[in-house]
Amino acid sequence: MSAAAPRYTYLGPEGTFTETALLQVPGAEEAVRIPAGNARIALEKVRHGEADAAMIPIENSVEGGVPATLDAIANGGELRIIREVLVPVTFQLVARKGTRLEDITVVSTHGHAWAQTREWFDANHPGVDYLTASSTAAAAVALLEDGAAHQAAVCAPIVSRTHPELEVLADNIGDNPDAVTRFILVSRPGPMPRPTGADKTTLVIPLPEDHPGALMEILDQFASRGVNLSRIESRPTGQYLGHYFFSIDADGHAHDARMQQALAGLHRISPATRFLGSYARADAQPPVVAPHNSDAAFAAAEHWVAGILRDGAAG
Amino acid sequence: MSAAAPRYTYLGPEGTFTETALLQVPGAEEAVRIPAGNARIALEKVRHGEADAAMIPIENSVEGGVPATLDAIANGGELRIIREVLVPVTFQLVARKGTRLEDITVVSTHGHAWAQTREWFDANHPGVDYLTASSTAAAAVALLEDGAAHQAAVCAPIVSRTHPELEVLADNIGDNPDAVTRFILVSRPGPMPRPTGADKTTLVIPLPEDHPGALMEILDQFASRGVNLSRIESRPTGQYLGHYFFSIDADGHAHDARMQQALAGLHRISPATRFLGSYARADAQPPVVAPHNSDAAFAAAEHWVAGILRDGAAG
Amino acid sequence: MSAAAPRYTYLGPEGTFTETALLQVPGAEEAVRIPAGNARIALEKVRHGEADAAMIPIENSVEGGVPATLDAIANGGELRIIREVLVPVTFQLVARKGTRLEDITVVSTHGHAWAQTREWFDANHPGVDYLTASSTAAAAVALLEDGAAHQAAVCAPIVSRTHPELEVLADNIGDNPDAVTRFILVSRPGPMPRPTGADKTTLVIPLPEDHPGALMEILDQFASRGVNLSRIESRPTGQYLGHYFFSIDADGHAHDARMQQALAGLHRISPATRFLGSYARADAQPPVVAPHNSDAAFAAAEHWVAGILRDGAAG
Amino acid sequence: MSAAAPRYTYLGPEGTFTETALLQVPGAEEAVRIPAGNARIALEKVRHGEADAAMIPIENSVEGGVPATLDAIANGGELRIIREVLVPVTFQLVARKGTRLEDITVVSTHGHAWAQTREWFDANHPGVDYLTASSTAAAAVALLEDGAAHQAAVCAPIVSRTHPELEVLADNIGDNPDAVTRFILVSRPGPMPRPTGADKTTLVIPLPEDHPGALMEILDQFASRGVNLSRIESRPTGQYLGHYFFSIDADGHAHDARMQQALAGLHRISPATRFLGSYARADAQPPVVAPHNSDAAFAAAEHWVAGILRDGAAG
Repeated sequence: MSAAAPRYTYLGPEGTFTETALLQVPGAEEAVRIPAGNARIALEKVRHGEADAAMIPIENSVEGGVPATLDAIANGGELRIIREVLVPVTFQLVARKGTRLEDITVVSTHGHAWAQTREWFDANHPGVDYLTASSTAAAAVALLEDGAAHQAAVCAPIVSRTHPELEVLADNIGDNPDAVTRFILVSRPGPMPRPTGADKTTLVIPLPEDHPGALMEILDQFASRGVNLSRIESRPTGQYLGHYFFSIDADGHAHDARMQQALAGLHRISPATRFLGSYARADAQPPVVAPHNSDAAFAAAEHWVAGILRDGAAG
Repeated sequence: MSAAAPRYTYLGPEGTFTETALLQVPGAEEAVRIPAGNARIALEKVRHGEADAAMIPIENSVEGGVPATLDAIANGGELRIIREVLVPVTFQLVARKGTRLEDITVVSTHGHAWAQTREWFDANHPGVDYLTASSTAAAAVALLEDGAAHQAAVCAPIVSRTHPELEVLADNIGDNPDAVTRFILVSRPGPMPRPTGADKTTLVIPLPEDHPGALMEILDQFASRGVNLSRIESRPTGQYLGHYFFSIDADGHAHDARMQQALAGLHRISPATRFLGSYARADAQPPVVAPHNSDAAFAAAEHWVAGILRDGAAG
Repeated sequence: MSAAAPRYTYLGPEGTFTETALLQVPGAEEAVRIPAGNARIALEKVRHGEADAAMIPIENSVEGGVPATLDAIANGGELRIIREVLVPVTFQLVARKGTRLEDITVVSTHGHAWAQTREWFDANHPGVDYLTASSTAAAAVALLEDGAAHQAAVCAPIVSRTHPELEVLADNIGDNPDAVTRFILVSRPGPMPRPTGADKTTLVIPLPEDHPGALMEILDQFASRGVNLSRIESRPTGQYLGHYFFSIDADGHAHDARMQQALAGLHRISPATRFLGSYARADAQPPVVAPHNSDAAFAAAEHWVAGILRDGAAG
Repeated sequence: MSAAAPRYTYLGPEGTFTETALLQVPGAEEAVRIPAGNARIALEKVRHGEADAAMIPIENSVEGGVPATLDAIANGGELRIIREVLVPVTFQLVARKGTRLEDITVVSTHGHAWAQTREWFDANHPGVDYLTASSTAAAAVALLEDGAAHQAAVCAPIVSRTHPELEVLADNIGDNPDAVTRFILVSRPGPMPRPTGADKTTLVIPLPEDHPGALMEILDQFASRGVNLSRIESRPTGQYLGHYFFSIDADGHAHDARMQQALAGLHRISPATRFLGSYARADAQPPVVAPHNSDAAFAAAEHWVAGILRDGAAG
């Protein structure tokens, strides 16, 4: 990243959970923050140097992987994930000041937010009509315009904090109180975050052939070195039915010997495997590594083999 | 299904690719056809007896698995897939009669259709504005109403066939000419389609624990009996990050011995495994089965073990 | 076995460790005991009905598997192991009464016994000459004949107990004080010993093809059902280099569901697999069985699959 | 090996199949050849510098692995196999000149040879008595001494060639006409034979723990890199029942990348793994190596990982 104030882009508009995630990055509050219309656009800004890094959602505990992110980062110029951020997904019902719940006939929000608050509305305000919006924040901000077709919006808490002219009619209206979304901060290839001992490595691995053995061979590259997977998502390559790539998060850092060996094995089996970065886990939980999978064990094994080859240099 | 004319529901409205898929089912043309607002609603109609079967999309060669379908069939009352239908995804640009391409400033369609025709618009009519619609058919039919904000729609060919008042401005405008969507016909549990020799079995398998070994154990249940997988999709259970179920299509029928053994193994490892049905493959391609995985081999093995137990009945 | 007093054969002559093993079988003391020249002869006596059962050594903690036994039981008419017996291998140095250690210039015993007492002789009577004998007992008994070329013999303690005219010059002269030999009691196929909860199953499994995958597939039949192996020995089939069969002891009884499934899987992969019996472990140590490999888990899985097939009987 | 005429030791005495094997080594005919009483003694001569190399049998197509060799090379100072030799096992029946078959009442030979010619005697000279000898050659040579208790011997063809005073009564009397014994030439660690493209690597791998998973992990080190095994023998370590090491021949040379990776993996899992050498296969058959297991694939994978680490050197 440049020495000057960094420029961040993020999945906008302002007031989304993604901006909340970005503001958790040290220095982001003072930085230039450029909203982008979708994940692909945000990553293109990074690729073209218009931004130093992009914050985009990759995974939601309720909805699953975010296809647009998974696809946008798997294709195009190489990028690196340098940080992950977890944001609890809590929804508020907001309206113009003075609005009462019984006045609301139409509520607007993004489809995902609507899906995650249906039970609250069924229990507390059944029969309300729903108007789709491009984002939760857009639905809320539109309330301030004259002639809005809706009287309330479902959005992230950040909106009411930054728009005091909106009133919170109900807080924590999500159906799943433990819902959390995971965001990644993505930059161009460059210096990798140092290993912290509790790291994650993200990979894109095309399934080389259409047989179950191929996926098992891929998984075995991790399992045989004791590398645990914390996320595995399948995505179609778009070429034909049954042609997939896998988006995988593995516990450990590219500087760990067991991860390097797993990476090399993956490259042999699926040469188009993409390395998307090693970075600190948001939860700072270190993995359990068996002694025979430690850096020391790999170094000892390499030393032993080198000794065999040196002593037995072909005569 | 009832002896009377069957009642089908499908992901509506009329004129979608899903209706095209439904019309490929023998007798569907004369049957009652009830459009449903989403996959969950369609399946609920089947569960409650309001329809005999539902046609819904499960997988698209470009977009991947359809999350709403995967989730709706994985939860709730048990259902059975009894047929699969493949429909090529071809898009038309339609407008009211007399409209010329250069007159179009706003085009409307479903988000997926827009994503799959972007290249055509960039090349043939750059700069056009896009208005989201709830379905491709809805966007097209809305053109016939006065005061529509858009002048053209992207939709399936079925719409212009049933609405002669619409004009086709351009055909086959999809970016990927080989795009295909796979649909499934879903009914309540009942008699299974007979094995044809080229069958598919669909399963929902919750990952029992958060470790890579569990997924490998699951895959091994298939691999160790020579059962090939043609689709594997991960989906979050919605409980917490990293908690998945897998939606899997496996080659073969529940009446095949190797599939029965794989099913039993899956039930042991992941007791909440769900059987979603065995049915004929749309492409009628039979699997290659090694002699030691044939029904005959399983029968011989069972006979051998039975002989050991019988001859050696505990004294 | 016949209702009359059973007739046992064993690897003779009298006074060997094998007779010691046989005498641990309840009732053997009063039974007819027929020494046999080698394991093959002993088993042939059983096959032909000349004996009800044969006691032969199968494994020694120092020397390994006994090839003659492994080969003799793997070929020819089917037989069943019905019991195992462990005998500590302790050696005595015996001589005619009045002989002193310093009088001994030549010692005789079986080659194995000589190999296991070399350290004692090196330390206590270096330079003594060694004369090969066909068995430890034969070497000892020959001392009582006139004109014997040797003055001492190495043999099992049973010999001095039954031949008071021999004197024990030294006891426990084996180099490995924990040495133990495992013996098996073999009968014709018939009622199997009841499961005790701590059982062993012995198998002969020809390696179907010359590739490492075949052995892994065989081992996976056990591992995928959580069946532990306590012994694995490779033996050539005698046909050509690199053609093997494996002699395996697995924890569990043929009446255990996990063992039945493993047996069936082995039969598919290697149809010439031979079942040599299930019987109580001499050490009475029960195996640790994970819940998903229990009889209950297998029964539940079978019940589940049966339900799928019954409810969905092809229409 | 020293520049002077090499000194070879071998499992003697003169006239055994082992000497036949040694004479196939270029230059052995002119070299010093020192018979040794057993494999352990032969290897000790090499370890102590009394011989430059030892020829000993390792495997017989009928009898299997030679335990004495497997154990003697697995323990003690490190040694290297530098060559393998295959010798067909053909037996002759020899006697003093003038002896007729019907004159023979006692025949002598080594136990293994007797076992492999039983069918011939049963068919051609039933009822003959058998006298054990320490080697086939010793039995034959003893015929030339006065007062021999036997009138004929079973031995290798080399004996009658070097002792014209013996007459061959019958040739090729072995029960298995394809029987072959494999011998190895063993030296102190030093320059390794160059890779020929058709090589073999011999290893001693202690089973790290008593569970089936350990053996599968070991086999997976080979299988996951496409390394085929041509021999696998289990041997007890002698410590307690169920404690094994495996003696393994794998296709390929330590200079092959896939073998180096397999060796490193074995060292991690079983740090006491012993490398016994890489050398040309006697049959010169090259292995089939899949593209993703080739040296080029390993080099490309390593290059890719190095690039990731270099470009992303921790900032």
